[in-house]
Parts: sequence; structure tokens; C-alpha cells
Amino acid sequence: MLCDFLIFSDLVVILADLLLILQFDKDNIITFHIAMYRTKTCGELRLANAGEQVTLAGWVQRTRKMGGMTFVDLRDRYGITQIVFNNEVDAALCDNANKLGREFVVQVTGTVAERSSKNANLPTGDVEIIATAMNVLSESATPPFTIEDNTDGGDDLRMKYRYLDLRRNCVRKNLELRHRMTILIRNFLDSRDFIEVETPILIGSTPEGARDFVVPSRMNPGQFYALPQSPQTLKQLLMVAGFDRYFQIAKCFRDEDLRADRQPEFTQIDCEMSYVHQDDVLEIFEDMARHLFKEVRGVELPAKLQQMTWHDAMRLYGSDKPDLRFGMQFVELMDVMKKGKFGVFDDAAYIGGICVPGCADYSRKQLDELTNFVKRPQVGAKGLVYVKYNADGTIKSSVDKFYDEADLLELKKAMGASDGDLVLILSGDNANKTRIQLCSLRLEMGERLGLRDKDKFECLWIVDFPLFEWSDEEQRLMATHHPFTMPNPDDIPLLDEHPERVRAMAYDFVCNGIEVGGGSLRIHDGKLQEKMFEILGFTPERAMAQFGFLINAFKYGAPPHAGLAFGLDRFVSIMAGLDSIRDCIAFPKNNSGRDVMLDAPSEIAQEQLDELYLNVDEQRVNLLKNK
Amino acid sequence: MLCDFLIFSDLVVILADLLLILQFDKDNIITFHIAMYRTKTCGELRLANAGEQVTLAGWVQRTRKMGGMTFVDLRDRYGITQIVFNNEVDAALCDNANKLGREFVVQVTGTVAERSSKNANLPTGDVEIIATAMNVLSESATPPFTIEDNTDGGDDLRMKYRYLDLRRNCVRKNLELRHRMTILIRNFLDSRDFIEVETPILIGSTPEGARDFVVPSRMNPGQFYALPQSPQTLKQLLMVAGFDRYFQIAKCFRDEDLRADRQPEFTQIDCEMSYVHQDDVLEIFEDMARHLFKEVRGVELPAKLQQMTWHDAMRLYGSDKPDLRFGMQFVELMDVMKKGKFGVFDDAAYIGGICVPGCADYSRKQLDELTNFVKRPQVGAKGLVYVKYNADGTIKSSVDKFYDEADLLELKKAMGASDGDLVLILSGDNANKTRIQLCSLRLEMGERLGLRDKDKFECLWIVDFPLFEWSDEEQRLMATHHPFTMPNPDDIPLLDEHPERVRAMAYDFVCNGIEVGGGSLRIHDGKLQEKMFEILGFTPERAMAQFGFLINAFKYGAPPHAGLAFGLDRFVSIMAGLDSIRDCIAFPKNNSGRDVMLDAPSEIAQEQLDELYLNVDEQRVNLLKNK
Repeated sequence: MLCDFLIFSDLVVILADLLLILQFDKDNIITFHIAMYRTKTCGELRLANAGEQVTLAGWVQRTRKMGGMTFVDLRDRYGITQIVFNNEVDAALCDNANKLGREFVVQVTGTVAERSSKNANLPTGDVEIIATAMNVLSESATPPFTIEDNTDGGDDLRMKYRYLDLRRNCVRKNLELRHRMTILIRNFLDSRDFIEVETPILIGSTPEGARDFVVPSRMNPGQFYALPQSPQTLKQLLMVAGFDRYFQIAKCFRDEDLRADRQPEFTQIDCEMSYVHQDDVLEIFEDMARHLFKEVRGVELPAKLQQMTWHDAMRLYGSDKPDLRFGMQFVELMDVMKKGKFGVFDDAAYIGGICVPGCADYSRKQLDELTNFVKRPQVGAKGLVYVKYNADGTIKSSVDKFYDEADLLELKKAMGASDGDLVLILSGDNANKTRIQLCSLRLEMGERLGLRDKDKFECLWIVDFPLFEWSDEEQRLMATHHPFTMPNPDDIPLLDEHPERVRAMAYDFVCNGIEVGGGSLRIHDGKLQEKMFEILGFTPERAMAQFGFLINAFKYGAPPHAGLAFGLDRFVSIMAGLDSIRDCIAFPKNNSGRDVMLDAPSEIAQEQLDELYLNVDEQRVNLLKNK
Repeated sequence: MLCDFLIFSDLVVILADLLLILQFDKDNIITFHIAMYRTKTCGELRLANAGEQVTLAGWVQRTRKMGGMTFVDLRDRYGITQIVFNNEVDAALCDNANKLGREFVVQVTGTVAERSSKNANLPTGDVEIIATAMNVLSESATPPFTIEDNTDGGDDLRMKYRYLDLRRNCVRKNLELRHRMTILIRNFLDSRDFIEVETPILIGSTPEGARDFVVPSRMNPGQFYALPQSPQTLKQLLMVAGFDRYFQIAKCFRDEDLRADRQPEFTQIDCEMSYVHQDDVLEIFEDMARHLFKEVRGVELPAKLQQMTWHDAMRLYGSDKPDLRFGMQFVELMDVMKKGKFGVFDDAAYIGGICVPGCADYSRKQLDELTNFVKRPQVGAKGLVYVKYNADGTIKSSVDKFYDEADLLELKKAMGASDGDLVLILSGDNANKTRIQLCSLRLEMGERLGLRDKDKFECLWIVDFPLFEWSDEEQRLMATHHPFTMPNPDDIPLLDEHPERVRAMAYDFVCNGIEVGGGSLRIHDGKLQEKMFEILGFTPERAMAQFGFLINAFKYGAPPHAGLAFGLDRFVSIMAGLDSIRDCIAFPKNNSGRDVMLDAPSEIAQEQLDELYLNVDEQRVNLLKNK
């Protein structure tokens, strides 16, 4: 009986398109049913499967004809398996195989066999399938670009045919990683008692911050919903509601002019906790980051991440998101270089330098490149001073006519430079702007020296942000994070007289020079919140109109609370070593906010507009079009 | 040393608002740090904790003064713990406790002690905290309704103060259940190789189906995005892209006039698979449902769910979502009742009855109620015929003057009625409409007899839906599911001549009379898809304009694929035994699509409209307002 079973279970009868298979159920009763499209995937067969009868389905990656044999690489999400058709055994079948084009979808039945010439690069490379039947499920036109990691398709073409681009292994891997990360994140937060709560997408418009996308309401003519820039106020309400620990992997929307790494819709890992101090928040999300890096990349982050004040970050790296994969900390040179010898430095509000190890042998051409780099409008420096401390002990600098050797040796000491190092110096009349320029130069040097290794991860917290920052555009103080951020209790007395000096209970999670997450302790006291609105220039009426629900909620027992949000797109792209968040988004939009595949946005019917009580200002639209 | 340790670890010093605690780290070095807001939650202390020094934080549920003692019930998400203040021990502290109002937020430190009068209804009911310190973190105004399971707040008030409503245990539990279900669903699907992929929220408008919400694009003046009614076409593109198994817990949007159980934004568990037959899909999602019912409710669904054809469901229950928690299947009575004796029946296109067990003793009043029930406009029947088969063997009916006892005994046999049963009969000139009326009556009887038990779950698949249904409104055939549904291969020859007879490869998952999920095999052949659009009245141009991306995608090797979507809101509300999906949504909208808490939608600034090249048709809006 056991013997019969083995024989029968291997018996496969193919009838036309629908394979009918004889099978036993548990009670050894023979049942007929429509066969599965496949019994195995293209990624799982190994030498141990040799001799098995299998059915695979997938896309034709390539076909090769060699003598009387035709080889087909069949691809699915799980891998590639080689199929062999033998002209001598079944000429008609082999003929059909020869007609297959790239990206045809086929179903193949055959026997797993050991390959004579194995392919060590493929997990399935030890075996091939000796085909006994084949069924074309879908034909394919010639794809507009090759479905390979190194494709011949340009950006625009690949975006238009994104469904083909997504077939490429390297692109799909990013989306698989994204899935894996969200599963890990959700299970981690669940294990720490966080509840995921879906907050609404159709909410009210809050003009503070970036521009909202709005949605006309047909049922409420003349009125609009807005899409959330973040669930900030809603998650705070959930804390007032006693939810204690909330998270959401949430879609957020900002109608901004798009820069390279911005999308109109993006995803945040949004979190909020009650009854916590800043350290409690940092600890839990450090744990989360540690868990992710370990699971996804096998990287062990240190037991405790560095916390750097915003002030130190600006002073030492000219950035609130320093890349710590390499050194070249700034050295302030006001004392060292201000000697009444060089007018540019004597007049400067800031002079700072970096020591680039081992680059004293930079050529004139290379130094000119660096000078041009800092003078680009994106950087904006007026010039670059260099000092080469040559390996032979000699010194050569662009300020030789102003400073003598003693001066430059003093500089060498201040910079901690060794023979063979190159010191680069910027100065300017605005300290912070000059630091930001020096930051660009530092990153450029890191890039040139190959120090920004995508497989190395340096994470840290930036803390003690200023609560406000001055907006030249708006000519007023703006909230650095948002209006709900708690001031440092020690600085509350400064709120009236010196708001610019008040530190926020805010923190950013930075990895490899990228701000991956950020958050803050929130104000939970209605009066302090009103004070904040006042400093930010809200009239009490406007504050009530926009945030009345939150101010009211605080009247009914708000717990101390805090939170943060990680940018999922950025987090995934760092983990995947990508240059753009676009590469880890299934259907991204281009820099005009268009989905070129769907051809959206588009015009809508007049009846749709009528139902919404809206008119497009065609005159202005046409003016714009004819520009 | 051990002794010292115990003494020190219990030593708590409270300094102003910020508690500073002396603690040992692992190396027994004393460190100062800002104490946690709490060391335990209000839900975790048990008798075993007696003697421990703890700090709790939460909301004041109630206070009671008894003699020299004040008792405070402190509440957080995790439970309620009783705090005791003793006037004789610390009069000032007790005084402060007496000033606490409902919903104040406080932090209390004290010692866990065994209660003399235990509360068996609370997991923490064996203990209380003898308070030694208290700190009011937030005061509260008197809440507009009581924060109790049985609250005195009406619907409108609770929605306006949703953040207080969500504090109620019974409401928060629903959201916790929702979280738990999504965690279970994600991990289940992940274990079956599904990848969650986020599809965009800003897509193109597709007028087929329900009305879209649209979003004006500032960067593309005069053009609009639409919010997805479902990720249908995008998930099909992911199949073309070779993703093999996709899912997403996805927000969907429909701008419909809201009925009781509809929300403008709702959430779907959206799934799609490649290389599968219908049975493969049903099997995997049956497994998922089985897993959920087991984990969430401890209910074992049968090893294989019943599959009922749409035709049988309509014939036996007058519904494509029959409630199988009770019997009362329809019996068609055309042969039995058409005897040329009763004109109403003689002229009817359909006569059907249900046998209500044990209800022959229904009074005149009760039968009148039933007659009124079926005559309500929502049901729409012209009248109700009843036959009582009394327990004593006598028969009493509303058609006694038309039918003799032999007729009614024949009916009894046809209905399978016993003595004591009540037979209810409806007839009409439109078979399906009458069946739907009889369905309402059947459900009403189930309700009256308490047979619609919320703790009982009867799940089944409805299969073999008609591919098209006739729309009286549009005067054309519409897709029953959507235009991408695969016709039953056996019925393809009928497409041209008898499209109304073509069965779809579509299936619904029904539980307790509610359609929880639905899906279909999809067309993956461009030509068949074009044919479908043609039957649905699309010109080729319109089909290309709206679905060109999909039709094009099918040219490059589309795999056979199928999928389905569960309504998460409905699924959760069934599991939670709720009457409305609103109760498992954190911030639902009312029947006018308004969020009364946020007061959204609302008017927006003219500058916002100008940026979007839009004008509100104020004249028409005002006309409407003045109506």
C-alpha cells in the first residue's frame, strides 16, 4: 500500500491547459482536482530534490539554444531555475520552447536533475528541470528595457513602466526589505505595549508648518478636508485619551516644491508615549533601532548611543545631523589665525578648519577643485585657505605671504595635524553660515576619501535643540520642531525676554549624516501651550480656531507625554544603502509630483467639479500654460 | 551588604515635581537620576507584590472618604488600583487627596498592601497602595460625561469629546482588539510569503464605481489627484511586476452619501496572489480567518468552510450574505399555493415561506407587528400571510377563507413544519425582490428569537456570482464586483449573447450575515479585458484613458492572479460584537462626513484656493445654505 502510494503520488497527467492531478487525501482516497499552477517556486529546488516531478511557473529571463538542447532561465520572486528542453526527446516541445520570448509567462512540468555544469552563483545552480510539458500562460511584447540589475532603461522610462522596473531583482529587494522592516518594527513596538491606532486621513487644515493638500467636501459645500502632514495632534489626543503608548506606520502628506529626496506622500513610524521623561523615550527607540540594525544588517549598535547637544553638533560638525562615520571635527581658529596679518581672517566672525589626514600631496588641480566646490552657490563660501603639512616636514599654504612658519606650526598644533596632512580653513562674517559651508567641505572630503561607507552605520542622538528659530522669510520666530514642543524647564524663565535662547526637550535620531527620526517632550499644560502660541504670533482666536480641540482636551487631565517619528522611507533607504528614498517606494512620484505611470494628476470632468461647487480658474491656468 | 541594598533600594526621596531616586546600578554604585513617572502600571500589582514600594501614575476614576481614610481609584490603560490615604498618618497628604477631582492626573508613591475587603471584580482587587507621596500632574475640569462603560453621555457629546470617550474601557478595548487583529493578520500573511507594499494615496481618478474624493494639485494647475477607492489596479500591477503575493492594510476612500455603517474613509485588508486558482485563494484566507477566530475569540471554525453558490444563497436565504446562525431556509411554494384559490398567490411570480419554530402561539398583536414590519418602505412587501400550526394540532391562518385544511396540511409538509410552528409567507411579482423581503423577515424572526447570538460565528463562502448586474439607474450592465473580474471559463461563450448569465470567478467571505470580504480571479489577458470594457459600455478610447496603464501592463507577461479584500472595520466589529463599525474607529466621522471633534472639513483661506487655481462657486453654496 505504501508502495502504491508512492507510485501514484508521483503520477502526473496533464490535460490541456488545466492540469488534473491524481492525489490521495489523508484517507488514501483518490481525488481529482485542478492542479496548482506550480508545485514549487523557482527559488527552492536543490540537489536533494533530484528525481522529483515538479511544476514551476514564472517569467522567461532568457533562452539559449545549444546543439539539440534549449535552455530557459525561468524567474519568479524567489529565484531563477534552469529548464532544459531536449530536441531528441520531444521535438515539438523543444520547438515551442524556441519560440519563447523574454518575459513570456510559462508553466513548466518536468523532473529535477543534477546539472553537469553547475552555477555557483545561483542557489538553484546545482539543478535543472528536464521539461516534459510546457504551457504559455501569457505572451510578452519586447520590454522597453532589460529586466536586469544593470538595466539599459533610463529613469523616465523605468518610472513609466514601473511594473517592469519592479521585476528587477535589485528594485524588488528594496520593497522586500521595507516589508521586513515594518514587520520587525510592529512586532517590536507591540512587545513594548504600543498599540497601533489608525488616525484619519481626512482631517482639518492647519496652515502652520508646510502647505496642506486639501480635499473638497461634496457633502459640505465650500469646505475642505486636509491630508495630515503628520498625525501630531491626533496622537497627542490619544495620550489625553489614556492610550499610554501609541504607534502608527502612517502616510503623511506635504504639498511642497519637491527636492531630490522629497515625496508629496511619505511614511512615518509615528510614536507617542505617556508618563515618560526624555531618557525613557530615547532608551526605547534606541532599543528599536538596535533591534532593526541587528536583524536586518547584522550590525550591533553600541549599548548606549552618543547624545550630542545641538550646540556641539553645530560647533564640531556645522550640522544638526553630523556624519560620524569619519572624523575631521572642526577646530575653531579665531585665536590662532587672528594676528593682524591677514585681513580676511582679521575681519571674520568665524574661522574654522578641518584636518584631512594624508592629503598633503593634493595637487594644485585638486585644491582648485576644492576651492571651486566651496564657491558653488549651493555652498556659498568666498574662498578656501589650505595648508599642506608635507610628509618631509615642509609646509606649503595659500597664505604663505601672510603667515610665517611659526604661525603655521601653531596652527598645526591647534589642528592636531601630522606631517602628510592637509588643513582646510573657511572663514566668514556669519558663524553659523560658515560652519554649514565647512560642513559641506567636510562631507566632500569624506566622500573623496571613501569614508562614507554605506555598510558602516554611526547613529547618535542630537539633543537640546533651540525651541525657536528665526525665519527670515516670515520675519518671526518659528517653532524649530512644532508648536507643541516642551521647553527645557530650566529655560522657561527665558521665554519672555530671550526666547531664542530657550532649549527644547527635543531630540533627533541621526544616522550617517541623515536625520532618520525626531521628536520631543510635549507641552501638556494648557497655559504653557497658550504661551507658546503667543510667542509664535498666534492671536488667541487663531490658536483656538486651529488647535481648539487640543487646548480643550488639555483641560480634562492631560498626562505628561512625549514621542517621536522616524521617516520610514529614509530608514529603509539607509538600511538598503540607497541614494534616494524613491528607490524604496513602490510607485513614487517625480519632481513635479506626477505619477508618470498612472498619468496622475489629471483633469477631471466638469460634473465632478460641479458636484464640489468648484471652478478651476481657467484663465490663470491658461496664462500659466502659455508662459 | 545584601541588607544595605534592600534598605537603600527602598529609599525614595521626593524633591519637588521631579522625583530623584537613589538607585544602585549593577555594580552597586549609587547613581542619581530623574525617576521614572511610574515604576508599575495600574493593572499589574498582585498580592505577591505586597510590601513593595511603587510609584503609579494615572487618572482619578473616583474618590471615597470613609472615616479618616480617603480611597482613590487610580486608572490607566492597564487597569485600576486602589490608593489609600490615611489622615492620621499624614493629614496634609490626605487633605490633598481630598481635593482631587474626577480625571485629575496624579502620580502616587506608596507601599503595596493586602486589602482587608478584597474586590474580586478587579485583577488588582487584592491589594491597595498605602500612599506616602502624591503629585498632581494635571488637573481636570468636570468631564462632560462620566468615564464609565455605562456613560451618561449621548452620541453627539461623546463624538465631540472623543478623546474622553476613548478613555472608557469598553471603547478602548475595541481599538486594542483592532491592533491585535492587525498584528495577527500581518504575521500570518508574512508567514505565507505575502509582502506588504504601500501603494500611493494620491492616484488618478477613475469614474467607474463610486465617487472619488479628489485633491487639487498645486504643481499641476487645473489637475486633480484622486484618493483610492481601493488599491485594485495597483495590486494587479504588482502581480504583473512579479511580487507573487501582496497584501496591504490599506486606507480606502469613497465619497458616498453615508449610510449607517459607512465611513468616507475605511480600511481594507487587501491581498493579491499570482499563479493561483480559486480554491488556492479560498484555502489561504480560510486559514487566516480560522487563525484569527482562534486567537481572538477562542473559536474553532470548521476545517473547511461551506461554499454556497450565489444562486443557492438567493434561493434559500434571499441574500448574498446569508446569516447561517439559524435555520428558517426559504421554501418555494409556487406548486403548493397556486391552486386557483387565492388571487394574490395565483398572480405571483414568486411565493416563498419560512417556518418559524415554536411560534404558533404568536398573538394577533405580534402578527400585526410582523405585517407592519414587512410593509415598511425599507422592506416593501404588500402583505404577509401566516399559518399557525398550533401545538394542539389545529391550524389558524390569514388565508383560511381561501385554503382548506388539506391545502394547509400540504403546506405544512412542504415547509417541514411541526405542531407549534408558525409559517410566514410572502409573494410578489418580482422573484428576487420578494426573496429580499423574505430575507428581512427571516432576519427579524432570528432577532426576535434571540438566534443572532454575537458570540456565535457562522462563516461561509458565496461563490459563482453573476459577472454583471443590471443597473436601473444607469440603464446598462455593471460589473458586479469590478471590471477586472474573470468570467467563469465555461461561460465565456455566453459573453456576447447572454452576458447576464455569465458567472464570475468571484467569491465573498460572509460571517453572520455580513459580507466581511470579497474577491475574484482577475483577467490577465489584455484581449479579454478589452472585451469586458466593451460589454460595460466603455469606448476603447475611454478604456485606454482610464485603464491604459493596466491594459499596457498586460502586454508584458501578466501572470494568472487573483485576490480579495476584507473590510477591516467590519471584521473587527464582528469580532468585538459591535453594532457599528464606528465603534472600532478611533476618530470616526458622522453621517455628514464631519469630524465634529476637529470640526473638519472647514473653509480654507482664499490664498490657499488661489494657489490651487480654484474658486468656490459661492453663489451656489449660498443658495444651498439659504434653502
